[in-house]
Amino acid sequence: MNYRFSARLGSFSSSAVREILKLTQGDSVISFAGGLPAEEHFPVTAISEAFERSMRLGKKALQYGLTEGYLPLRESLGRRMARKGMNVTPDDMLITTGSQQVIDLLSRIYIDPGDVILVERPTYLSALQVFRSYGAVPVSVNGDKDGIDLADLEAKLKQYRPKMLYVIPTFSNPTGRVWSEERRRGALKLCREADTLILEDDPYGELRFGDGSRTYPSIFSLDEHPQGSCVVYTSTFSKTVAPGLRTGWALGDPEVIRQMARAKQAADLQSSSLDQQTLHQLLEHFDLDGHIELVRKEYEGRMRRMADLLRQYNWPGVSWEEPEGGMFFWVELPEEADTAELLKTAVELGVAFVPGVTFFADNPKRNAMRMNFSYNDASVTEIGMERLNRALAGVLV
Amino acid sequence: MNYRFSARLGSFSSSAVREILKLTQGDSVISFAGGLPAEEHFPVTAISEAFERSMRLGKKALQYGLTEGYLPLRESLGRRMARKGMNVTPDDMLITTGSQQVIDLLSRIYIDPGDVILVERPTYLSALQVFRSYGAVPVSVNGDKDGIDLADLEAKLKQYRPKMLYVIPTFSNPTGRVWSEERRRGALKLCREADTLILEDDPYGELRFGDGSRTYPSIFSLDEHPQGSCVVYTSTFSKTVAPGLRTGWALGDPEVIRQMARAKQAADLQSSSLDQQTLHQLLEHFDLDGHIELVRKEYEGRMRRMADLLRQYNWPGVSWEEPEGGMFFWVELPEEADTAELLKTAVELGVAFVPGVTFFADNPKRNAMRMNFSYNDASVTEIGMERLNRALAGVLV
Repeated sequence: MNYRFSARLGSFSSSAVREILKLTQGDSVISFAGGLPAEEHFPVTAISEAFERSMRLGKKALQYGLTEGYLPLRESLGRRMARKGMNVTPDDMLITTGSQQVIDLLSRIYIDPGDVILVERPTYLSALQVFRSYGAVPVSVNGDKDGIDLADLEAKLKQYRPKMLYVIPTFSNPTGRVWSEERRRGALKLCREADTLILEDDPYGELRFGDGSRTYPSIFSLDEHPQGSCVVYTSTFSKTVAPGLRTGWALGDPEVIRQMARAKQAADLQSSSLDQQTLHQLLEHFDLDGHIELVRKEYEGRMRRMADLLRQYNWPGVSWEEPEGGMFFWVELPEEADTAELLKTAVELGVAFVPGVTFFADNPKRNAMRMNFSYNDASVTEIGMERLNRALAGVLV
Repeated sequence: MNYRFSARLGSFSSSAVREILKLTQGDSVISFAGGLPAEEHFPVTAISEAFERSMRLGKKALQYGLTEGYLPLRESLGRRMARKGMNVTPDDMLITTGSQQVIDLLSRIYIDPGDVILVERPTYLSALQVFRSYGAVPVSVNGDKDGIDLADLEAKLKQYRPKMLYVIPTFSNPTGRVWSEERRRGALKLCREADTLILEDDPYGELRFGDGSRTYPSIFSLDEHPQGSCVVYTSTFSKTVAPGLRTGWALGDPEVIRQMARAKQAADLQSSSLDQQTLHQLLEHFDLDGHIELVRKEYEGRMRRMADLLRQYNWPGVSWEEPEGGMFFWVELPEEADTAELLKTAVELGVAFVPGVTFFADNPKRNAMRMNFSYNDASVTEIGMERLNRALAGVLV
């Protein structure tokens, strides 16, 4: 049998993170690679109770349901979104198998081969993978610690007339940075003028450190929607409840949502009824905000421990910023370093991270790395950092 | 905002079944439309126990897992497949969000725009939808009560050099028919010679009526795999356990499976960990075969009740066959009838079915309808058939 794979095949380069995750599963490598939440803080008892409640509601929980998602979940999620300034009805909402599926479905209905999609520099690698699989050309826009560079965005909107801008404005993956409100408003205005749809990816927005006095309005909430929303917003329960429930959602114009739902019918008919009903019961009967507060504090502690270690090791020529939320440090080594090479040594010494090179649409930096601080507790992080220190010894002078 | 949807959009015609499902949810329409299993036979207690077992195994159940699927589930599923003559390792297997996702992922890695895919006449409508969304041209092959017409298949393999043949050889959707072993072997031989991959969709294979003396080997099990398997086999727990767990699987050559897993990374990272681990516990600790035996008997009873009613009403010029398994009757009205028109009247009178027209890749029959017998119990079926009788009164002379 000679297989005749599609031309599209070449675009599915396997995600480096997932491949590393595979290598490090169940052995002695300490991983700062994956964007994994801390298992010890999964609300297992609450999830079990929520599951039992949905089972008690009857056998419908196990039947086929609507492609758009379980209506009571969309309703309770709508109330939750309203508290964050996003006023939506169930018709503005699609429940998905994680927010990864939102990126996929929106690409599926919106992208033609050759279309340009603007992205941040650097950005989420699996989004790049999706865009490329539909034949799109991702082009990166510069940014700084306050977010996307509006002048560069304006120039590239003009130059490429892109269909979409994909951004993670709050505690970015991989940089951990957060956009100022001015940049959010600025990008929205420019994109509306250019008829460029914004895909706002917000998996980490609730993982905010500090006293909670600073808030970051979503771009979706800033959009006044004259003649249709300019933003599709997506988030997930993966970081606030647990990834294993694989439930994300999209908010957007009902016409866009309706088209995404049609694409979802073809893709998988619907997401797990059981997960959706369990999450609905959880939203109704569990203090999720209290739980998130606990997770935030824990992650802030883990972030501070890693920051302390970064300061103590004080590797020459290495720079990083302390994130205000999320799950990641973005660490830049001296220009001549190559973190993909470093990773090989590191894994031999029993520690993993993600080389920065994979996060760029174009002109990749080879000297950066993404380090997750949420997954490991302080004692494991200390051992991992000590191993990384040894791996770096051969690289830094 | 002017939305600039992709050219692909037109191909996502919403599935007629799903739209009807929406109309009939929660109101008084009796639906013979969906391919829904009987809720009263979902093994709720066993599922709850399996869920509790997986929760007791620890918090890993709620963490991110492998794209390929939860390894213990692939192992236990492998043992189950081996009992059906399909000898596979976990590397020959991908766990998906229902078998619908197998159709999607295989299309994604295998189909280029303009490729021909051969399908049965008639065939599963949502498969047609997926193929078209990737720009493929489905072409139908004739068949009869013993399965696909080998002469027509041979001619069309020669004429189109198609990349794929998509079939449901056991208790077909929508016809309920089952292929003879001769047709299975014949189609396999022809497709291997033509380098045409067979996608064997087997959601209903376990729902076999009668005393179990007749068995139907899967095409996959007949393939001796010289130089790579010629068949990708897919099945699901949706009809034997419950659809809400949204878990299907693909078996195939490890190279094909590996490419599908890469496409799945982009599509949704992985399917629900919770569903997969619950199903694994179910396979290990529950008598699934005993449960399936119970479901089979119940469905056979429901099928016979509907068959009795079809015989009693004895509508003039209407033909149908009694299926040996599965979930559907395929009913043909006289040539001049249009079942899409009939459906409007039927829904007004409180009963729904799926018009046959949607199940054809080309030259659709307008006078056929698919009627599900698994979902409703005998008393509801009787009322539904009485309503259908009234709807037909205006159509049949």
